[in-house]
Amino acid sequence: MRNSLFEPVQNEIALVEEGIKAVADVEYPWLVELLGYIVNSGGKRVRPALTLLAGKLQGDANNDALIPVATGVELLHTATLVHDDTIDRSPRRRGKPTAASIWGWGIATLAGDYLFSKAAELVSQANSVRADRLFAQTLMALCTGELEEGFNSFDPNQNRENYFRRIGNKTASLFAMATESGGIVTNASEEAIDALSRYGYSLGMAFQIVDDIFDFTAGEEELGKPVAGDLLQGHLTLPTIILKEKHPADNPILDIFEHKQVEQNLDLVIQMIRNSGIVPECYDVAQGFVTDACQALDIFPGSPCRSKLFELADYVVQRRQ
Amino acid sequence: MRNSLFEPVQNEIALVEEGIKAVADVEYPWLVELLGYIVNSGGKRVRPALTLLAGKLQGDANNDALIPVATGVELLHTATLVHDDTIDRSPRRRGKPTAASIWGWGIATLAGDYLFSKAAELVSQANSVRADRLFAQTLMALCTGELEEGFNSFDPNQNRENYFRRIGNKTASLFAMATESGGIVTNASEEAIDALSRYGYSLGMAFQIVDDIFDFTAGEEELGKPVAGDLLQGHLTLPTIILKEKHPADNPILDIFEHKQVEQNLDLVIQMIRNSGIVPECYDVAQGFVTDACQALDIFPGSPCRSKLFELADYVVQRRQ
Repeated sequence: MRNSLFEPVQNEIALVEEGIKAVADVEYPWLVELLGYIVNSGGKRVRPALTLLAGKLQGDANNDALIPVATGVELLHTATLVHDDTIDRSPRRRGKPTAASIWGWGIATLAGDYLFSKAAELVSQANSVRADRLFAQTLMALCTGELEEGFNSFDPNQNRENYFRRIGNKTASLFAMATESGGIVTNASEEAIDALSRYGYSLGMAFQIVDDIFDFTAGEEELGKPVAGDLLQGHLTLPTIILKEKHPADNPILDIFEHKQVEQNLDLVIQMIRNSGIVPECYDVAQGFVTDACQALDIFPGSPCRSKLFELADYVVQRRQ
Repeated sequence: MRNSLFEPVQNEIALVEEGIKAVADVEYPWLVELLGYIVNSGGKRVRPALTLLAGKLQGDANNDALIPVATGVELLHTATLVHDDTIDRSPRRRGKPTAASIWGWGIATLAGDYLFSKAAELVSQANSVRADRLFAQTLMALCTGELEEGFNSFDPNQNRENYFRRIGNKTASLFAMATESGGIVTNASEEAIDALSRYGYSLGMAFQIVDDIFDFTAGEEELGKPVAGDLLQGHLTLPTIILKEKHPADNPILDIFEHKQVEQNLDLVIQMIRNSGIVPECYDVAQGFVTDACQALDIFPGSPCRSKLFELADYVVQRRQ
């Protein structure tokens, strides 16, 4: 995927990869091992690619500011995954044992903190207080989204409004930061920065909705975690919220939340979602966000980077994993 | 204590208190409760006072930059305490149940992350990339110190060099940031910024050494935790390192680290430290750092703020808790 979608910024992505590896170039051997393990655990690099494509949308831009910011965006994402895995006690991520399962959750928590601060330090290399502030506000939004998920789990009254707000915070805010910061550190106009933020936010919304569809339509092997894992953790997502809307009186969600015949009811939910119009309806909502994202790009003249941002938007709803 | 030592900046400390309270003014009721509980848990406000005194050392300074930075410094400290308590599974802090013991460690971890980012956002209000970068680097140092403590626990070869490096990272870096950032955001000269950093760092070293002395000389009630708690967690501090230096062949530390007759050996260590020259020797080392701190202030003309920074340095070694 990277080769085609990231083509206009492939040299820059290579520099970001170097920057990510360099995070583990530290004084202490035990820290080299810990950080090296975490930062070399893969990832599709979608978010730094967004920063780079956004930064180069209006012509050649200064890499001195753009590369550290793109690297910081990816590291911020990595740090949140480390904390998510620690909080959820996940044994594996991307086919490898998580840091928490190897080093324990105390060390993993501190490693996540370290990566947050390293990400902030990288962003500060762009010499833009505005980018620094956006970074801080984005991390606040990410935490708010995750906290809302924690506080509202197993609440059967979760609705579309809560859901959109929650995924806006926990996912779309980081996509928005990725593109917006690309504009900020290349001195784009306010109009352009605003458009880039809107593109990233809408793309992130679509991305999360499609992820939440996969949670019901994909197999356990593809997901790398149990099918309908969100529901088991008490989180309603778009497919289950639509199910509730369509069957307010007779749906098995409340039984699952009350721990009644969980396995049987879970199978029922999965079948009700798969064998109904719910999946296409969710894709329609995701497609609406993709359309928003693409419309935001209208103000920019045609260019290879703009074409790739359009392709990326389509990829988000067309991908199979 | 606050009334006398913080006298030249008492109006500003009141503004910092307001800023700390305002952290809980957020949209979501559950987040208001969580953040309100954490930020209203007290604290002596030594670190923000240092920022304010440093910022006003050379005359009246712009509060618009200084107040948010001082507030951010205190919140950074608060966030690290939340994560420390979560990692250590501490049930109480300052006489109140910890956030982790009320909301669970997942929520507490996220609350700490939120406070880190809120602290960064406050610092960014000073519109100084240099202060933003210092903030990020300080958090990296704090994490490195805590990680080193985690990785080297129960290693009987911990020595003075490790110890000074570790407390330099986990404690003195934040004191140095407190004073240095006060200089940075009030546009002090490079010489002044450097001197403020040296003052804060040395003060922080003395502060931690005295804390580590208390761990052996104070009672459990005063400490709010078990006597010699560090040793029980496998951390050697200056008193035990000196004990090892004085009795390389026959000291009970190795037995404790190997979990042999822990209670009996712990009593022996406490007695060996209390009834020897070790405590005065540790105070001498702390006093050396206080002298360094005060010397750093030589370049500044006499002023009420400078006098208070001298008094604060003396207070650090003379305090009884």
